[in-house]
Amino acid sequence: MESELIAYLRERLPPHPSLRLGAGDDAAILSLGESSDAVVTVDMLMDGVDFRLDEVAPRRVGRKSLAVNLSDLAAMAAEPVAAVVALALPKQGGMALAKSLYEGILPLAAEFDVAIAGGDTNSWDGPLVISITAIGSVKAIKTANSTSTAWRRSGARPGDLLLATGEFGGSILGKHFDFTPRLREARILAERYEIHAAIDVSDGLAIDASRLAAESRCGVCLNLASIPIAPAAAELARQSPHDESPLDHALGDGEDFELLLAVDPETAARMLAEQPLSIPLTAIGEFLSEPGLWQRAEAGNITPLEPRGYLHHFE
Amino acid sequence: MESELIAYLRERLPPHPSLRLGAGDDAAILSLGESSDAVVTVDMLMDGVDFRLDEVAPRRVGRKSLAVNLSDLAAMAAEPVAAVVALALPKQGGMALAKSLYEGILPLAAEFDVAIAGGDTNSWDGPLVISITAIGSVKAIKTANSTSTAWRRSGARPGDLLLATGEFGGSILGKHFDFTPRLREARILAERYEIHAAIDVSDGLAIDASRLAAESRCGVCLNLASIPIAPAAAELARQSPHDESPLDHALGDGEDFELLLAVDPETAARMLAEQPLSIPLTAIGEFLSEPGLWQRAEAGNITPLEPRGYLHHFE
Repeated sequence: MESELIAYLRERLPPHPSLRLGAGDDAAILSLGESSDAVVTVDMLMDGVDFRLDEVAPRRVGRKSLAVNLSDLAAMAAEPVAAVVALALPKQGGMALAKSLYEGILPLAAEFDVAIAGGDTNSWDGPLVISITAIGSVKAIKTANSTSTAWRRSGARPGDLLLATGEFGGSILGKHFDFTPRLREARILAERYEIHAAIDVSDGLAIDASRLAAESRCGVCLNLASIPIAPAAAELARQSPHDESPLDHALGDGEDFELLLAVDPETAARMLAEQPLSIPLTAIGEFLSEPGLWQRAEAGNITPLEPRGYLHHFE
Repeated sequence: MESELIAYLRERLPPHPSLRLGAGDDAAILSLGESSDAVVTVDMLMDGVDFRLDEVAPRRVGRKSLAVNLSDLAAMAAEPVAAVVALALPKQGGMALAKSLYEGILPLAAEFDVAIAGGDTNSWDGPLVISITAIGSVKAIKTANSTSTAWRRSGARPGDLLLATGEFGGSILGKHFDFTPRLREARILAERYEIHAAIDVSDGLAIDASRLAAESRCGVCLNLASIPIAPAAAELARQSPHDESPLDHALGDGEDFELLLAVDPETAARMLAEQPLSIPLTAIGEFLSEPGLWQRAEAGNITPLEPRGYLHHFE
């Protein structure tokens, strides 16, 4: 992180109990406490791909860059500790842009008690690139197989129910920038219930549900009628020139940043009855021993469902 | 990290005792052990700025992207634990490029026992951007002011000598890609001697020495005659159309990735006599109470020295 930006940030960063040494040295030093594991995640967003700087305020881009990482930590039931920020800034107006980005990053970091522990700031002739690495902690449990309290994608079992926080679809109308990472929800759920597996929905409800199942070496069947559809999904279906229904948008739009959870049926029943969150918890499907992604239509029969969502292509 | 690359990497990544959960989930889980602190650093390299893909093998770019981070960990006397890799790949040939990059990253990671703990891989119409975050550990020491064994930039004291590993200048002829991060040297020095402060030379010997002094709220005076000049610096002076001497190159070229250390005179004398490393340790200056960067010429008089090296500019 370069000196002007360091000075700018030092004025704005509150002290953080976990940050023993922050921006300005060769690296940051984090205290994660005893019997804790560090959880690390990185996301890179690029102008023209993940956002368009000519259409969105840089503050919202900065906020989202951190928020997507915090959503990943939420999907692990990790407590966020720190983040480091790497920037490739356009030469013209780069410093002002960097500050605007941090105007979105810092309030979100403060809200969730995340130390901005350092970074690397560069300028070039290319478009803005912002890469944030977030580090969280989870309680380490000393057992023979040395596990931890982190939720993984791989723990779902056939017969588990698939639960979801919030609602889906149409995030491009605003939520894809302004969503709240489900850290508080994850904390509440991790404290009260045994969750077998979890993922956050970034690429799309259908494709991320199928990933959760695949990592758990089982399949998953979505009850299409029970999927909570966001008003934005209906709005988008009205606007859209294509023939996509609100349900199509809910299944495939992505960037909902809600949590999908695998839970045994008894626990699921308790969670659904107690509704411990300020947002709805809904059962939207079940895990099967048969691999793949399936749908249960209203008639009750099970048929294959095409995984929908954002797929990363490489040539 | 996307599925094809994850599969590619899973085949090539050895198990790592600190990596409880690696690439493929929402985040990685690292065990840092008890009474340890995590050390985190990030560096972003961009095609056309830090390297030119039409001039250098991607493997060397990948290696360097990790090596610069490991050099930062060395400058903290941290043991490397893990790294995460974020990529913006050109659409055409992106996957092949990513693999070539990892052909440089993985052997270096293996050499220094670094777990590649995850990443984020993207493609776009722009040039290659690679951002690596490295995480290391240092022993946490329980004291009233809660310190750790990490070297910082801020501990130099007036009267300390400035010691350097290796030699300086002309790195652009090859060393800037193929340098060995001074992790082994840092470990040896940290175990045997009390080091007050340290920095690695990335932007230039003169400017990085002045940063070490400034962070320690003192000044530093370089003994120009004692600076170890690399053969490449002399070679570059011969090739250069400018009137720069080998010493000028040693002072300002940067990317030497050697360590600068602040040590009290008695310890320094012992280090210089014992020469515990496989590369030379040389006293090249001393810290002063008077702030700023100074030079001692052969006649012995002290005059200001212009900080030379790579300065990051923002508009």
